[in-house]
Amino acid sequence: MPAPARAKRSEPASPWEARRQRGSGHALKRDAVILAAARAFRQRGYHNTSLDDLAASLKVTKPTLYLYVPSKEAILFECFRAGLAQIQSTLKECESAAGPARERLFAFIRGYAAAIVGDFGWCMLRAEDQHLGAAMSRRIKLLKAGIDKRMRALIDAGVADGSIRACDTKMTAFALAGALNWMGHWYREDATLKPGEIADRFIDVFNRGLRGRD
Amino acid sequence: MPAPARAKRSEPASPWEARRQRGSGHALKRDAVILAAARAFRQRGYHNTSLDDLAASLKVTKPTLYLYVPSKEAILFECFRAGLAQIQSTLKECESAAGPARERLFAFIRGYAAAIVGDFGWCMLRAEDQHLGAAMSRRIKLLKAGIDKRMRALIDAGVADGSIRACDTKMTAFALAGALNWMGHWYREDATLKPGEIADRFIDVFNRGLRGRD
Repeated sequence: MPAPARAKRSEPASPWEARRQRGSGHALKRDAVILAAARAFRQRGYHNTSLDDLAASLKVTKPTLYLYVPSKEAILFECFRAGLAQIQSTLKECESAAGPARERLFAFIRGYAAAIVGDFGWCMLRAEDQHLGAAMSRRIKLLKAGIDKRMRALIDAGVADGSIRACDTKMTAFALAGALNWMGHWYREDATLKPGEIADRFIDVFNRGLRGRD
Repeated sequence: MPAPARAKRSEPASPWEARRQRGSGHALKRDAVILAAARAFRQRGYHNTSLDDLAASLKVTKPTLYLYVPSKEAILFECFRAGLAQIQSTLKECESAAGPARERLFAFIRGYAAAIVGDFGWCMLRAEDQHLGAAMSRRIKLLKAGIDKRMRALIDAGVADGSIRACDTKMTAFALAGALNWMGHWYREDATLKPGEIADRFIDVFNRGLRGRD
């Protein structure tokens, strides 16, 4: 899966157009379908994007799309999974790194913020709202719950190693996830602050709190 | 506008059914339409709720609904406005109360959490995602921006009176709003913690931060 472009996003190049240079690997083309879909869903909304639109943006026919993905719902799920993969990868890194868990939690916050504003962030946050089938909804909920569980474990590890004070782990994870996920609603690419700077401001608030003089 | 029921929600009673006892005030019936719609939108989604469903739940005909509201979009906007009115009312209270601004900000967080999990919370958070017309979207954005501005002013007041340490006011407001708005995604009425308790946990995190030993 291609890394999300954080700067200006242009239309993804169609790998069908450059068969000779790039080879015609099935996985490469499937990734291109998913990336193009993720960008279209975010721009126009899931329900306003047809497979015809998507095929046209990739300069292929709709039957060609079906060689790579069985349905629009399956594409949305793959977009969700691509975003999730980014989050899982940053989680894995933070879980296995050395150092106090608080620092590892903050590194995770930085990675999470980058994923949220990345190409698959919209799909990751909005997939569940798109009236998906029950089976698909359940899978997404389960995968999200897995992230939540690991995030809480990271906070617990901080309480255990003393780098994080005793707190309500679940509510702390929800507050953090809420602050970060909300970026998906307000963040624009032309924002003054880059995603890493926003993450740093959030970390500052969550680290030190707001309390001034008593 | 009726206050949101925080405990178990039953179907709102239809004021058409009790004309003699309650009188037939236009405003009362309009409020009933809006409350029933807010509950239906949250339960089944905006696009899955038809005006026919809504009329049936109120035991009136669709033409009767049109006596009170011109369109489904207008109903959603009124639901949004009803939620907004709750937030504006708690904001007004917190702005004019005595005491350090940090305490007033935290009181606002409690009121905001109650509104988010109340009857109109879903509509307040999701109205913008429902592919509304451009004019309606603009109005909603403007009204939301007004809340954000006042929330930042409350934080600024805390920095000015020393009760809140110097921080990035805008990002702090976004982190707080994100944590609170996210409740709309995960909060269930059968949750172990009541909305006020959740708000208190959030306040604890935002007040003192997570930092343990260095």
